[in-house]
Amino acid sequence: MAKPNVKQQLVTAGLNLLHSKGFNATSVQDITDAAGVPKGSFYNHFASKETLGLEVLERYAEAAATYCDVLDDTSLAPKARMRQYFDLLIGANTATDYNCGCMLGNFSSELSSQIPGMRDVLRRCFDTWAACLAVVIAEAQRDGSVRAPQPALELAHFIIDAWQGAVLHAKASQSRAPLDRYADMVLNQILL
Amino acid sequence: MAKPNVKQQLVTAGLNLLHSKGFNATSVQDITDAAGVPKGSFYNHFASKETLGLEVLERYAEAAATYCDVLDDTSLAPKARMRQYFDLLIGANTATDYNCGCMLGNFSSELSSQIPGMRDVLRRCFDTWAACLAVVIAEAQRDGSVRAPQPALELAHFIIDAWQGAVLHAKASQSRAPLDRYADMVLNQILL
Repeated sequence: MAKPNVKQQLVTAGLNLLHSKGFNATSVQDITDAAGVPKGSFYNHFASKETLGLEVLERYAEAAATYCDVLDDTSLAPKARMRQYFDLLIGANTATDYNCGCMLGNFSSELSSQIPGMRDVLRRCFDTWAACLAVVIAEAQRDGSVRAPQPALELAHFIIDAWQGAVLHAKASQSRAPLDRYADMVLNQILL
Repeated sequence: MAKPNVKQQLVTAGLNLLHSKGFNATSVQDITDAAGVPKGSFYNHFASKETLGLEVLERYAEAAATYCDVLDDTSLAPKARMRQYFDLLIGANTATDYNCGCMLGNFSSELSSQIPGMRDVLRRCFDTWAACLAVVIAEAQRDGSVRAPQPALELAHFIIDAWQGAVLHAKASQSRAPLDRYADMVLNQILL
């Protein structure tokens, strides 16, 4: 197996640290130490920690998008697919004891105005995510299993925003309760 | 008028900076500069930036709680009061061009695991907030203007969590749209 190159090691270490500790609480030294590479090598690959932050967010969003595959499983009814999808998201948060949150939300909170270009990447990530969810919601509206009259894309955006808030509360309270409440409210009240 | 004392100046400057820039992006020097006091004086009043952070959050929550006064105006129907309440929250975010977000959400994201005692304060703030909102929701459930069958306190927690997410999205997109969508969804779909 080929040895991962230094840039890849920095991205992987950066993703883990920026997700678990946050952007401003993590130094370039923390990242190079975790990657096991000399500090100086960082700047051969990234102009700044901000540049790495943008790349790490893109990688995070790509990885998170694979969860959306369960939304394509047409052997299940649309709302059953969404239930599976929420279970995956809740499982990923449970696996880190609710400590990491969602990088989209964390970066929205911490970095929206700090890193040039960050808003564009965040906006694109939120829009892509909402578009995926909207397909399933629209399908459920067509088959009558969801009667909510709002446009599917509006519902999808609201549901994703509400997820971000539930994740924050789970992190603050170190508890799964906000996430279970979220899934129940979305499936049994919003998507009624 | 009495001159505000140094501690009060530090809390005021700290509140503004920690809210607008975030905790880890703000140094003690930034705070003492903004307060117009010598850096050394900071440690006469606070053991650390973390100690100030806890006090600032308490002050922020006290100030934010005054918005809840409109929820007590029984000359209006419960949902009309909630509409007024959301308008106040949206107005406060609009006034800062959506750049600051809610300190409860920001600190949940950035500091839950970084500052000992932070989780306790955050949990108490979220619980107090939800309890206020739950009173009006319960009133609306009793008078039949809200038919959502979930317990009022569960609905209140979900509605507050969803607000946190909408605020993050507004910050990331520098747009009012997520906040307007939030108010519409809560009043016309969740609290149906």
